[in-house]
Amino acid sequence: MTVSAILSAVRASTPLVHCMTNTVVPEVTANVLLAAGAAPAMIDLPEEAAIFATVASALLINVGNGLSEQHEGMRRAAAAADGAGTPWVLDPVAVGALPVRTQLARDLLAHRPTAIRGNASEILGLAGASGGGRGVDATDEVDAAIATAHRLSADTGAVVAISGPVDVIVSAGRTTRVTGGDPLMPLVIGTGCALGATVAAALGATRDTHAPHDAVVAAHALFGAAGLAAAELASHPGSFRTAWLDALHALTPDEVAALVTVEDEP
Amino acid sequence: MTVSAILSAVRASTPLVHCMTNTVVPEVTANVLLAAGAAPAMIDLPEEAAIFATVASALLINVGNGLSEQHEGMRRAAAAADGAGTPWVLDPVAVGALPVRTQLARDLLAHRPTAIRGNASEILGLAGASGGGRGVDATDEVDAAIATAHRLSADTGAVVAISGPVDVIVSAGRTTRVTGGDPLMPLVIGTGCALGATVAAALGATRDTHAPHDAVVAAHALFGAAGLAAAELASHPGSFRTAWLDALHALTPDEVAALVTVEDEP
Amino acid sequence: MTVSAILSAVRASTPLVHCMTNTVVPEVTANVLLAAGAAPAMIDLPEEAAIFATVASALLINVGNGLSEQHEGMRRAAAAADGAGTPWVLDPVAVGALPVRTQLARDLLAHRPTAIRGNASEILGLAGASGGGRGVDATDEVDAAIATAHRLSADTGAVVAISGPVDVIVSAGRTTRVTGGDPLMPLVIGTGCALGATVAAALGATRDTHAPHDAVVAAHALFGAAGLAAAELASHPGSFRTAWLDALHALTPDEVAALVTVEDEP
Repeated sequence: MTVSAILSAVRASTPLVHCMTNTVVPEVTANVLLAAGAAPAMIDLPEEAAIFATVASALLINVGNGLSEQHEGMRRAAAAADGAGTPWVLDPVAVGALPVRTQLARDLLAHRPTAIRGNASEILGLAGASGGGRGVDATDEVDAAIATAHRLSADTGAVVAISGPVDVIVSAGRTTRVTGGDPLMPLVIGTGCALGATVAAALGATRDTHAPHDAVVAAHALFGAAGLAAAELASHPGSFRTAWLDALHALTPDEVAALVTVEDEP
Repeated sequence: MTVSAILSAVRASTPLVHCMTNTVVPEVTANVLLAAGAAPAMIDLPEEAAIFATVASALLINVGNGLSEQHEGMRRAAAAADGAGTPWVLDPVAVGALPVRTQLARDLLAHRPTAIRGNASEILGLAGASGGGRGVDATDEVDAAIATAHRLSADTGAVVAISGPVDVIVSAGRTTRVTGGDPLMPLVIGTGCALGATVAAALGATRDTHAPHDAVVAAHALFGAAGLAAAELASHPGSFRTAWLDALHALTPDEVAALVTVEDEP
Repeated sequence: MTVSAILSAVRASTPLVHCMTNTVVPEVTANVLLAAGAAPAMIDLPEEAAIFATVASALLINVGNGLSEQHEGMRRAAAAADGAGTPWVLDPVAVGALPVRTQLARDLLAHRPTAIRGNASEILGLAGASGGGRGVDATDEVDAAIATAHRLSADTGAVVAISGPVDVIVSAGRTTRVTGGDPLMPLVIGTGCALGATVAAALGATRDTHAPHDAVVAAHALFGAAGLAAAELASHPGSFRTAWLDALHALTPDEVAALVTVEDEP
């Protein structure tokens, strides 16, 4: 499916995205999903999360900064999503650098995430190939993580996305580069975490098409295009954030496709 | 009391609003209360919440996405508010759709909320008249919930507000419609949840007048007017959010009253 | 060290600030740190917090609205920071007014915070000199807390900062006044809490210089200057917040130093 078709499907179907995310980004994540045409629902309590993961269009599990009860909810929700066929996304924030979340994220791989999205350090950390970065900082380069990402994809069946100045999305036999965004994006908290949620929205809107790689690419294209559009209007992070949220809503699917470069490696 | 008099009372008395709310909206809720002239205090720990509910001007309990310890705090705070005569607002987010919060919200009714605010699905779900919506989405229409809202009001003694394109506020013998707002408002997370907090602020500022229906109406009028004012300046959710927060602060009580339509049904 | 040199050191070294803060302000705190040139990492889980406090550049502990597990994490992190020589900041939100956090904050003093930042009521409450304010409101005046702040500094070894219309920073033999900011700042939630995090960033960027008083002053100068700059562009809190975040990023260290008045009392 094309980027434009997938983003149109999000707007047409308003996928309900069950978000289990860290304490820093729930509000911006919800605002991003609403701007992109999806519907957010943050549900952490284990008993409720296990139910909701079976009825939501898609699930996001972001392991940054949860308390123990949220971690328990994540375990139950991932299992429930796997059982119900709900597509789900794992965002391994600071995995590799901190022990509890590293164990949690690796355990969750048994529940077959549809996609995994992180920066290079986190992808390496999840795969056991690195000691991890410093928190959410990306200290490793995207290209240095591609081979590991392919191995992680082969081991788990997930589409694996590495975020960076150029995003790289890999799955069996495919490596896709998405070029867009702006250097101000990493200065706005949540532009990474909300991308994981938007990946879930794209997967949820297209779950019957069995084209998860394309859905992951489309979500990255939307973020990259909105970053480019916002940079036309703002040069500091406060106003950039506002312009970027506007652009997520204002850009048509065709405009997104026209703004960014999406290239499959041969 | 008039809308203008109640909003003036908020600005004059700076009611201290104890907020126990979900993980998504604490920041926007606090900013909205400050813009409207109130003072927010988020306190969830059971031991502290039970104390603070007796000294605050008003209390908000929003059952969207809390952990078990917060739920315990809500139970203790509602009981304490009831005992101390502190007006309090129940926001039954996703009640009817998810079991733990549905039980919690129904249990809390025993502590006599002064007002209940939700969308139509949530009001129906709280009253046991519906299976509930999908998360915070309103899948039921406002008008279809009015009769149930009157019954809920009669059973609990609370003023019941149903949020939608037109808001309807009901209590014994009264049904009031507030027209205002903008279709962009549901695309900004927290415009519903922060309304519950603003209802609490209006109740807290006027608790000696024993006119809770008017206070609930006034809070809805403020939100509707700010939505109308923001829509003059912004057409996408990022900049709309900024303009709406500005308008909550900039509009005088008389300007609010002039912008929206408030009509009591005969 | 001068204000300009310290703010330049923050931008040059990107200190990694471990934040353990309340549920209301994590997002704005992260955005402020990024705008100022630092890197935020919010980590509350006790096992992870105890590890991270030893590797971070600095630690912030803000006792506003945490759950029991976060409180346990704060105790472990403060002990770990003290043991590792990590500079750390205590922000005693609503201490004096609420019992659990008051006990927590006083217990944490044993782990030798590098700096303590709060409003006058909170500083008095922490020192046991007052019954505390109403939540995060400052009901006491800055000047009335200076003598107590000096005593608290002598007892703990910490630099103590009192926030208000004019900020006062005290340590052994020094009392410094920082003039700047704008009356709109208290209407934007997190301008106080994020200041505590920025104090930690300044301490982390200059930990080898052993000049914590100057670092605390520099963080206050940055906030005051950004408030002045934002007030040139905005007169309501929504747009003020955006302009203020922009200014934190846009102002050069020299511009900050030129905008505010920093005066040591003789």
